[in-house]
Amino acid sequence: MTTKKFLLQEKDIPTAWYNIVADMKNKPMPILNPKTKQPMKEEDLYPLFSKAVSHQEMNTTDAWIEIPEEVRELYKVWRPTPLVRAAGLEKALDTPAHIYFKNESVSPIGSHKLNSALAQAYYCKQEGVTNITTETGAGQWGAALSYAAKAFGLELAVYMVKVSYHQKPYRRSIMQTFGSQVIASPSMSTKAGRKILTDHPNYQGSLGTAISEAVELAMSTPNCKYTLGSVLNHVMLHQTVIGLEAEKQMEMAGEYPDVVIACFGGGSNFSGIAFPFMRHKLLEGKNLRIVAAEPASCPKLTRGQFQYDFGDEAGYTPLIPMFTLGHNFAPANIHAGGLRYHGAGSIVSQLMKDGMMEAVDVQQLETFEAATLFAQCEGIIPAPESAHAIATAIREAKQAKLEGKPKTILFNLSGHGLIDMAAYDLYLAGDLRNYEVTDEEVKHNLSELEQII
Amino acid sequence: MTTKKFLLQEKDIPTAWYNIVADMKNKPMPILNPKTKQPMKEEDLYPLFSKAVSHQEMNTTDAWIEIPEEVRELYKVWRPTPLVRAAGLEKALDTPAHIYFKNESVSPIGSHKLNSALAQAYYCKQEGVTNITTETGAGQWGAALSYAAKAFGLELAVYMVKVSYHQKPYRRSIMQTFGSQVIASPSMSTKAGRKILTDHPNYQGSLGTAISEAVELAMSTPNCKYTLGSVLNHVMLHQTVIGLEAEKQMEMAGEYPDVVIACFGGGSNFSGIAFPFMRHKLLEGKNLRIVAAEPASCPKLTRGQFQYDFGDEAGYTPLIPMFTLGHNFAPANIHAGGLRYHGAGSIVSQLMKDGMMEAVDVQQLETFEAATLFAQCEGIIPAPESAHAIATAIREAKQAKLEGKPKTILFNLSGHGLIDMAAYDLYLAGDLRNYEVTDEEVKHNLSELEQII
Repeated sequence: MTTKKFLLQEKDIPTAWYNIVADMKNKPMPILNPKTKQPMKEEDLYPLFSKAVSHQEMNTTDAWIEIPEEVRELYKVWRPTPLVRAAGLEKALDTPAHIYFKNESVSPIGSHKLNSALAQAYYCKQEGVTNITTETGAGQWGAALSYAAKAFGLELAVYMVKVSYHQKPYRRSIMQTFGSQVIASPSMSTKAGRKILTDHPNYQGSLGTAISEAVELAMSTPNCKYTLGSVLNHVMLHQTVIGLEAEKQMEMAGEYPDVVIACFGGGSNFSGIAFPFMRHKLLEGKNLRIVAAEPASCPKLTRGQFQYDFGDEAGYTPLIPMFTLGHNFAPANIHAGGLRYHGAGSIVSQLMKDGMMEAVDVQQLETFEAATLFAQCEGIIPAPESAHAIATAIREAKQAKLEGKPKTILFNLSGHGLIDMAAYDLYLAGDLRNYEVTDEEVKHNLSELEQII
Repeated sequence: MTTKKFLLQEKDIPTAWYNIVADMKNKPMPILNPKTKQPMKEEDLYPLFSKAVSHQEMNTTDAWIEIPEEVRELYKVWRPTPLVRAAGLEKALDTPAHIYFKNESVSPIGSHKLNSALAQAYYCKQEGVTNITTETGAGQWGAALSYAAKAFGLELAVYMVKVSYHQKPYRRSIMQTFGSQVIASPSMSTKAGRKILTDHPNYQGSLGTAISEAVELAMSTPNCKYTLGSVLNHVMLHQTVIGLEAEKQMEMAGEYPDVVIACFGGGSNFSGIAFPFMRHKLLEGKNLRIVAAEPASCPKLTRGQFQYDFGDEAGYTPLIPMFTLGHNFAPANIHAGGLRYHGAGSIVSQLMKDGMMEAVDVQQLETFEAATLFAQCEGIIPAPESAHAIATAIREAKQAKLEGKPKTILFNLSGHGLIDMAAYDLYLAGDLRNYEVTDEEVKHNLSELEQII
């Protein structure tokens, strides 16, 4: 048997997103105003975000939030995405396990990020917003939002971390082709950028600085809102279309997963595939494992601590209850740029705290070994981020072989790696390496947090 | 209304390829042995190609050739591909025309080339071949064959034109990730390569040289065959899955095309979408237009001449009856590398001669203008090659608007452009240009052919 796809029709695209918070017995703790340390209200978010997503961010009661018809129409450009039986990989591993993956790489920009980008751009347009801003690291989120902004007729300014702006010119070009403004951050266009450039003229940027610039531009521009591609509750919500489709497709395949796996940065693709299955655990006490695969060089879930922390390096955002390595943690320069984030969103952090899920960490070389095998077996070159999920699925499949037991594995292929071939080049040349994080580093960063709250 | 996809299920993947030659009243003229000038027989091709494709190459009687189950199973990795109503583009053009495109860009390697690569690799494997060779320019064909070779357990050596080897490192990395050997051509690994390097140490290569090297390696290696990604009849045959699916999908859409459009290099994606519709013209006298869109800088169909010519620059291949600009024609360095070929395959050339189809030429800047508009409307960044089809579809839609008449347009989106962003960068910066071909150039190249036969 070779690879089999399980395909849905357009009518099967979900009509509502799943808001897991409504079904959680222990709700996530509230986000706090960084000055007053008091819980923030929906209205407190209005200056930064559209009212609709501010409401979604705080919604703890409605389990299902209707997907606007205009967003659902644009989902049809590439959704429903296929569920694929990775029979080639199974054969190569000689495992009794059945391995399935949800293929989010088929989106026009190559990753799952479009699921939330379209929703966020839509709500801004509905509320009369004309301009939006965001930051991007490697560029997956920026590329998705660029298409979404164009689709809804919004002007978009993307602050792209300077080192990526120069290292990943293709992602920058994609954003520009869709018509957005891309600014290398730090830049001279904001106070925050000018200050940093004055102090450190050669600074190559960070996500923290880029967030500061994007927020500042949004706050100082009429009719302008800021958008974010991960971490926040409303982003997780929008991504649940992934798991809701996969639920139906696993039924078509006549199987139910023993384990659901996704890579983990801030939590957007993980939540997308995991929450609809987590629902079966929350409501029916279903026995399945849910595993977040994070880079060993940025191990917030496996080695971080649960406490309030800022969402950005500079400390401008609300305080979020999260598993964190400390907002000053500087992850090694691994090629899975989308996973280089110090904390986990508040919903995932609560679920982790409650023992509803597991996390594992994976070293860079293991991820590229897994990615190369997967490419050769299934024909798709995965994004370095997604390769963390693949490596973890392979571990599970090998374990099944060792135990001689059947097992049904489902993982999310969050994106393809066609724009990350430079990383594969280095891997094939033997020039990639692993990175260790010492306990001292973790402790040092966390100790600085103790005085925040 | 926004974009709508028309999706088929795996069971709808064709079970047979369509061999148009069987239905042509005027068969293509035979290919000739370059030495004896006599028609070649099937057996004459055995040293170079697998017996199965040699037979397909010469088959003038069977209209339907069964697709081997093993190949069809691998087609399931990404086929059937979607047919999409380009409603966003229609709206932007404010046209009464309905525009549909067949989306071949969803293949794992990003283009239609895999349709023939899998078939060719399969037949080689069946006949006990262990090693295969090929040449590639920009790398689309080489990438497709690399995955196909891995899927069937063959060793592959790809001679990649040196200038592309250095300019398109991502495509080279894709091939290497799939496990094939990629050699910059000219190389020291063949007599042909060594001779050229000795005479011209800095020569940056050409498809002609790369073909010579790939053929030489195949001929001098035990159990080794050569493969080609376009021009030849068996390649056209394998690509007809595109049009056979599109036929069903247009029925689902409740429409029939007034015009079918594809870009044109050697003819592989063009034949793929066009031949199944051409069949309606040949057998039922159906009234529809079929249009090949070629680059203005390489206008073999619009300004070339029908006569016998070599398939390669060096003059090693059989003589093919083709519309040609002369095998020494050096096309300008446009970014649609896959269309930089001097001649058209023999079937298309015969159909062109018989007035069964049309050709138009498009300048580079018009193609990038069309590509950018398409990307912004439909979310997919097209390959520079495919942009020729898009530009032609836009011309047709604008004409429909001028005339105030309905029109149904179908074009083939042969691939995405995510690995060609450097070209988009140049376009956005205003650094791309058009290229003119003078009548003198065309005449000069053709005059050299007169003494061949």
